Amino acid sequence: MSFVVKGLLRSYNVDEKGDEHMNMFSWEGWWTSDMSSFFSGEKAVFSIDAIENSELLIITLADFEEMTLKVPVMDRYFRLLFQNSLITKERRLISSVTDAAEEKYVRLMEYSPQIIQRIPQNLIASYLGITPETLSRIKKKITLRK
Amino acid sequence: MSFVVKGLLRSYNVDEKGDEHMNMFSWEGWWTSDMSSFFSGEKAVFSIDAIENSELLIITLADFEEMTLKVPVMDRYFRLLFQNSLITKERRLISSVTDAAEEKYVRLMEYSPQIIQRIPQNLIASYLGITPETLSRIKKKITLRK
Repeated sequence: MSFVVKGLLRSYNVDEKGDEHMNMFSWEGWWTSDMSSFFSGEKAVFSIDAIENSELLIITLADFEEMTLKVPVMDRYFRLLFQNSLITKERRLISSVTDAAEEKYVRLMEYSPQIIQRIPQNLIASYLGITPETLSRIKKKITLRK
Repeated sequence: MSFVVKGLLRSYNVDEKGDEHMNMFSWEGWWTSDMSSFFSGEKAVFSIDAIENSELLIITLADFEEMTLKVPVMDRYFRLLFQNSLITKERRLISSVTDAAEEKYVRLMEYSPQIIQRIPQNLIASYLGITPETLSRIKKKITLRK
Protein backbone atom coordinates (compact mmCIF):
# COMPACT_ATOMS: atom_id res chain seq x y z
CA MET A 1 0.00 0.00 0.00
CA SER A 2 1.34 3.48 -0.84
CA PHE A 3 0.98 6.85 0.84
CA VAL A 4 1.11 9.76 -1.56
CA VAL A 5 3.63 12.35 -0.30
CA LYS A 6 3.46 14.37 -3.51
CA GLY A 7 1.72 13.99 -6.84
CA LEU A 8 -1.38 12.45 -8.32
CA LEU A 9 -2.21 8.85 -9.27
CA ARG A 10 -5.13 6.95 -10.68
CA SER A 11 -6.15 3.33 -10.26
CA TYR A 12 -8.19 1.58 -12.95
CA ASN A 13 -8.85 -1.82 -14.42
CA VAL A 14 -8.83 -2.94 -18.02
CA ASP A 15 -11.49 -5.36 -19.29
CA GLU A 16 -11.04 -8.11 -21.88
CA LYS A 17 -11.92 -5.72 -24.70
CA GLY A 18 -9.11 -3.42 -23.59
CA ASP A 19 -11.49 -0.76 -22.22
CA GLU A 20 -10.35 1.10 -19.09
CA HIS A 21 -12.61 1.58 -16.07
CA MET A 22 -11.56 4.24 -13.54
CA ASN A 23 -11.51 3.19 -9.90
CA MET A 24 -10.10 6.16 -7.97
CA PHE A 25 -7.71 9.08 -7.88
CA SER A 26 -5.16 9.67 -5.08
CA TRP A 27 -3.13 12.72 -4.21
CA GLU A 28 -1.18 14.19 -1.28
CA GLY A 29 -2.23 12.62 2.01
CA TRP A 30 -4.12 9.70 0.43
CA TRP A 31 -3.31 6.03 0.25
CA THR A 32 -3.50 3.98 -2.92
CA SER A 33 -3.37 0.26 -3.53
CA ASP A 34 -5.22 -2.68 -4.96
CA MET A 35 -6.85 -3.30 -1.55
CA SER A 36 -7.98 -6.82 -2.27
CA SER A 37 -4.55 -7.85 -3.55
CA PHE A 38 -2.71 -6.05 -0.72
CA PHE A 39 -4.66 -7.77 2.05
CA SER A 40 -5.20 -11.20 0.43
CA GLY A 41 -1.96 -11.59 -1.53
CA GLU A 42 -4.00 -12.44 -4.66
CA LYS A 43 -3.13 -11.09 -8.09
CA ALA A 44 -3.99 -7.38 -8.47
CA VAL A 45 -6.85 -6.39 -10.78
CA PHE A 46 -6.21 -2.65 -10.65
CA SER A 47 -3.37 -0.90 -12.44
CA ILE A 48 -1.97 2.27 -10.87
CA ASP A 49 -0.47 5.10 -12.99
CA ALA A 50 1.08 8.39 -11.94
CA ILE A 51 -0.69 11.32 -13.66
CA GLU A 52 1.83 13.81 -12.22
CA ASN A 53 5.38 13.19 -10.99
CA SER A 54 4.77 11.53 -7.63
CA GLU A 55 6.57 10.62 -4.43
CA LEU A 56 5.25 7.61 -2.53
CA LEU A 57 5.91 5.92 0.81
CA ILE A 58 5.30 2.19 0.48
CA ILE A 59 4.38 -0.14 3.35
CA THR A 60 4.30 -3.96 3.21
CA LEU A 61 1.42 -5.96 4.69
CA ALA A 62 3.70 -7.34 7.43
CA ASP A 63 4.74 -3.80 8.44
CA PHE A 64 1.15 -2.58 8.19
CA GLU A 65 0.02 -5.31 10.58
CA GLU A 66 2.89 -4.68 12.99
CA MET A 67 2.13 -0.96 12.94
CA THR A 68 -1.58 -1.35 13.79
CA LEU A 69 -0.74 -3.83 16.58
CA LYS A 70 1.95 -1.60 18.11
CA VAL A 71 0.16 1.72 17.55
CA PRO A 72 -3.60 1.08 18.04
CA VAL A 73 -4.53 4.62 17.01
CA MET A 74 -3.53 3.61 13.45
CA ASP A 75 -6.53 1.25 13.51
CA ARG A 76 -8.68 4.28 14.25
CA TYR A 77 -7.01 6.25 11.48
CA PHE A 78 -7.57 3.47 8.93
CA ARG A 79 -11.08 2.80 10.25
CA LEU A 80 -11.99 6.41 9.45
CA LEU A 81 -10.17 6.27 6.11
CA PHE A 82 -11.89 3.06 4.99
CA GLN A 83 -15.23 4.34 6.30
CA ASN A 84 -14.98 7.47 4.15
CA SER A 85 -13.80 5.48 1.18
CA LEU A 86 -16.78 3.14 1.57
CA ILE A 87 -19.19 6.08 1.69
CA THR A 88 -17.62 7.56 -1.47
CA LYS A 89 -17.89 4.19 -3.24
CA GLU A 90 -21.55 3.74 -2.24
CA ARG A 91 -22.40 7.25 -3.45
CA ARG A 92 -20.61 6.63 -6.74
CA LEU A 93 -22.30 3.25 -7.22
CA ILE A 94 -25.75 4.82 -6.67
CA SER A 95 -24.94 7.78 -8.88
CA SER A 96 -23.70 5.47 -11.66
CA VAL A 97 -26.96 3.53 -11.83
CA THR A 98 -29.51 6.23 -11.03
CA ASP A 99 -28.19 9.58 -12.28
CA ALA A 100 -28.16 11.08 -15.75
CA ALA A 101 -24.76 12.38 -16.97
CA GLU A 102 -25.37 15.96 -15.81
CA GLU A 103 -26.43 14.90 -12.30
CA LYS A 104 -23.30 12.72 -12.05
CA TYR A 105 -21.15 15.76 -12.71
CA VAL A 106 -23.11 17.99 -10.32
CA ARG A 107 -22.72 15.38 -7.55
CA LEU A 108 -19.00 15.15 -8.22
CA MET A 109 -18.73 18.95 -7.89
CA GLU A 110 -20.58 18.72 -4.59
CA TYR A 111 -18.78 15.73 -3.00
CA SER A 112 -15.33 15.74 -4.65
CA PRO A 113 -14.52 19.32 -5.77
CA GLN A 114 -10.79 18.44 -5.69
CA ILE A 115 -11.33 16.00 -8.55
CA ILE A 116 -12.92 18.73 -10.68
CA GLN A 117 -10.06 21.13 -9.94
CA ARG A 118 -7.14 18.81 -10.44
CA ILE A 119 -7.92 15.92 -12.77
CA PRO A 120 -7.63 16.15 -16.59
CA GLN A 121 -11.01 16.31 -18.36
CA ASN A 122 -10.70 13.00 -20.20
CA LEU A 123 -10.09 11.18 -16.89
CA ILE A 124 -13.03 12.90 -15.20
CA ALA A 125 -15.21 11.75 -18.11
CA SER A 126 -13.89 8.20 -17.74
CA TYR A 127 -14.49 8.32 -13.94
CA LEU A 128 -18.11 9.34 -14.59
CA GLY A 129 -18.52 6.76 -17.36
CA ILE A 130 -19.37 9.41 -19.98
CA THR A 131 -17.60 10.61 -23.13
CA PRO A 132 -15.33 13.71 -23.03
CA GLU A 133 -17.78 15.36 -25.50
CA THR A 134 -20.72 14.86 -23.14
CA LEU A 135 -18.66 16.25 -20.24
CA SER A 136 -17.71 19.32 -22.26
CA ARG A 137 -21.38 19.91 -23.18
CA ILE A 138 -22.46 19.59 -19.53
CA LYS A 139 -19.80 22.04 -18.33
CA LYS A 140 -20.86 24.61 -20.94
CA LYS A 141 -24.50 24.25 -19.89
CA ILE A 142 -23.63 24.73 -16.21
CA THR A 143 -21.46 27.80 -16.94
CA LEU A 144 -24.30 29.39 -18.96
CA ARG A 145 -26.75 28.87 -16.10
CA LYS A 146 -24.57 30.81 -13.59
CA MET B 1 -26.30 1.39 12.60
CA SER B 2 -27.72 -2.09 13.30
CA PHE B 3 -26.08 -5.38 14.22
CA VAL B 4 -28.01 -8.40 12.95
CA VAL B 5 -28.52 -10.88 15.83
CA LYS B 6 -30.87 -13.07 13.80
CA GLY B 7 -32.41 -12.88 10.34
CA LEU B 8 -31.64 -11.47 6.92
CA LEU B 9 -31.96 -7.94 5.51
CA ARG B 10 -31.27 -6.15 2.29
CA SER B 11 -30.42 -2.56 1.58
CA TYR B 12 -31.27 -0.97 -1.77
CA ASN B 13 -32.07 2.35 -3.35
CA VAL B 14 -34.94 3.29 -5.63
CA ASP B 15 -34.32 5.58 -8.61
CA GLU B 16 -36.69 8.22 -10.01
CA LYS B 17 -38.31 5.71 -12.35
CA GLY B 18 -39.12 3.51 -9.35
CA ASP B 19 -36.50 0.87 -10.22
CA GLU B 20 -34.75 -0.82 -7.30
CA HIS B 21 -30.94 -1.21 -7.16
CA MET B 22 -29.57 -3.71 -4.65
CA ASN B 23 -26.78 -2.49 -2.40
CA MET B 24 -26.07 -5.35 0.05
CA PHE B 25 -27.43 -8.23 2.11
CA SER B 26 -26.82 -8.61 5.87
CA TRP B 27 -27.33 -11.61 8.13
CA GLU B 28 -26.24 -12.87 11.56
CA GLY B 29 -23.05 -11.18 12.71
CA TRP B 30 -23.15 -8.39 10.11
CA TRP B 31 -23.89 -4.70 10.45
CA THR B 32 -26.31 -2.81 8.25
CA SER B 33 -26.93 0.90 7.80
CA ASP B 34 -26.97 3.72 5.34
CA MET B 35 -23.31 4.46 6.17
CA SER B 36 -23.25 7.93 4.67
CA SER B 37 -26.40 8.96 6.50
CA PHE B 38 -25.30 7.34 9.79
CA PHE B 39 -21.96 9.15 9.90
CA SER B 40 -22.98 12.48 8.33
CA GLY B 41 -26.54 12.87 9.60
CA GLU B 42 -27.72 13.51 6.02
CA LYS B 43 -30.91 12.02 4.62
CA ALA B 44 -30.60 8.29 3.88
CA VAL B 45 -30.60 7.14 0.25
CA PHE B 46 -30.81 3.42 1.02
CA SER B 47 -33.93 1.64 2.19
CA ILE B 48 -33.50 -1.43 4.42
CA ASP B 49 -36.02 -4.32 4.38
CA ALA B 50 -36.10 -7.53 6.41
CA ILE B 51 -36.27 -10.57 4.08
CA GLU B 52 -36.66 -12.95 7.06
CA ASN B 53 -37.93 -12.20 10.57
CA SER B 54 -34.97 -10.39 12.10
CA GLU B 55 -33.62 -9.29 15.47
CA LEU B 56 -31.38 -6.22 15.49
CA LEU B 57 -29.22 -4.37 18.01
CA ILE B 58 -29.18 -0.68 17.16
CA ILE B 59 -26.43 1.78 18.11
CA THR B 60 -26.56 5.57 17.79
CA LEU B 61 -23.66 7.60 16.37
CA ALA B 62 -22.98 9.15 19.81
CA ASP B 63 -22.76 5.66 21.38
CA PHE B 64 -20.68 4.37 18.50
CA GLU B 65 -18.17 7.19 18.98
CA GLU B 66 -18.07 6.73 22.75
CA MET B 67 -17.54 2.99 22.28
CA THR B 68 -14.58 3.36 19.90
CA LEU B 69 -12.97 5.96 22.18
CA LYS B 70 -13.42 3.85 25.34
CA VAL B 71 -12.66 0.48 23.74
CA PRO B 72 -9.95 1.07 21.11
CA VAL B 73 -10.08 -2.53 19.87
CA MET B 74 -13.50 -1.65 18.39
CA ASP B 75 -11.65 0.64 15.99
CA ARG B 76 -9.64 -2.40 14.92
CA TYR B 77 -12.83 -4.46 14.57
CA PHE B 78 -14.52 -1.82 12.42
CA ARG B 79 -11.31 -1.14 10.48
CA LEU B 80 -11.30 -4.83 9.42
CA LEU B 81 -15.04 -4.79 8.75
CA PHE B 82 -14.92 -1.67 6.56
CA GLN B 83 -11.77 -2.96 4.85
CA ASN B 84 -13.53 -6.19 3.83
CA SER B 85 -16.64 -4.32 2.82
CA LEU B 86 -14.53 -2.01 0.64
CA ILE B 87 -12.88 -5.01 -1.05
CA THR B 88 -16.28 -6.60 -1.72
CA LYS B 89 -17.58 -3.33 -3.20
CA GLU B 90 -14.52 -2.91 -5.44
CA ARG B 91 -14.84 -6.49 -6.71
CA ARG B 92 -18.53 -5.99 -7.38
CA LEU B 93 -17.96 -2.68 -9.15
CA ILE B 94 -15.33 -4.27 -11.43
CA SER B 95 -17.49 -7.32 -12.04
CA SER B 96 -20.50 -5.12 -12.90
CA VAL B 97 -18.64 -3.26 -15.64
CA THR B 98 -16.34 -5.96 -17.03
CA ASP B 99 -18.06 -9.36 -16.61
CA ALA B 100 -20.73 -11.03 -18.70
CA ALA B 101 -23.77 -12.31 -16.74
CA GLU B 102 -22.40 -15.84 -16.32
CA GLU B 103 -19.04 -14.64 -15.00
CA LYS B 104 -20.84 -12.38 -12.52
CA TYR B 105 -22.65 -15.40 -11.10
CA VAL B 106 -19.48 -17.55 -11.03
CA ARG B 107 -17.64 -14.81 -9.11
CA LEU B 108 -20.50 -14.51 -6.65
CA MET B 109 -20.31 -18.31 -6.06
CA GLU B 110 -16.60 -17.93 -5.44
CA TYR B 111 -16.55 -14.85 -3.20
CA SER B 112 -19.99 -14.89 -1.52
CA PRO B 113 -21.28 -18.49 -1.44
CA GLN B 114 -23.57 -17.54 1.48
CA ILE B 115 -25.53 -15.24 -0.83
CA ILE B 116 -26.12 -18.11 -3.29
CA GLN B 117 -27.30 -20.41 -0.50
CA ARG B 118 -29.54 -18.06 1.37
CA ILE B 119 -30.95 -15.29 -0.81
CA PRO B 120 -34.12 -15.70 -2.93
CA GLN B 121 -33.37 -16.03 -6.67
CA ASN B 122 -35.07 -12.80 -7.72
CA LEU B 123 -32.94 -10.81 -5.28
CA ILE B 124 -29.71 -12.51 -6.44
CA ALA B 125 -30.66 -11.53 -10.00
CA SER B 126 -31.28 -7.94 -8.90
CA TYR B 127 -27.95 -7.91 -7.00
CA LEU B 128 -26.16 -9.00 -10.19
CA GLY B 129 -28.11 -6.58 -12.34
CA ILE B 130 -29.57 -9.37 -14.53
CA THR B 131 -33.10 -10.68 -15.06
CA PRO B 132 -34.37 -13.73 -13.09
CA GLU B 133 -34.73 -15.56 -16.46
CA THR B 134 -31.05 -15.01 -17.31
CA LEU B 135 -30.05 -16.20 -13.83
CA SER B 136 -32.13 -19.34 -14.20
CA ARG B 137 -30.56 -20.07 -17.61
CA ILE B 138 -27.04 -19.59 -16.20
CA LYS B 139 -27.72 -21.94 -13.26
CA LYS B 140 -29.02 -24.66 -15.60
CA LYS B 141 -25.93 -24.32 -17.79
CA ILE B 142 -23.58 -24.58 -14.79
CA THR B 143 -25.42 -27.65 -13.42
CA LEU B 144 -25.19 -29.36 -16.81
CA ARG B 145 -21.42 -28.76 -16.94
CA LYS B 146 -20.80 -30.54 -13.60
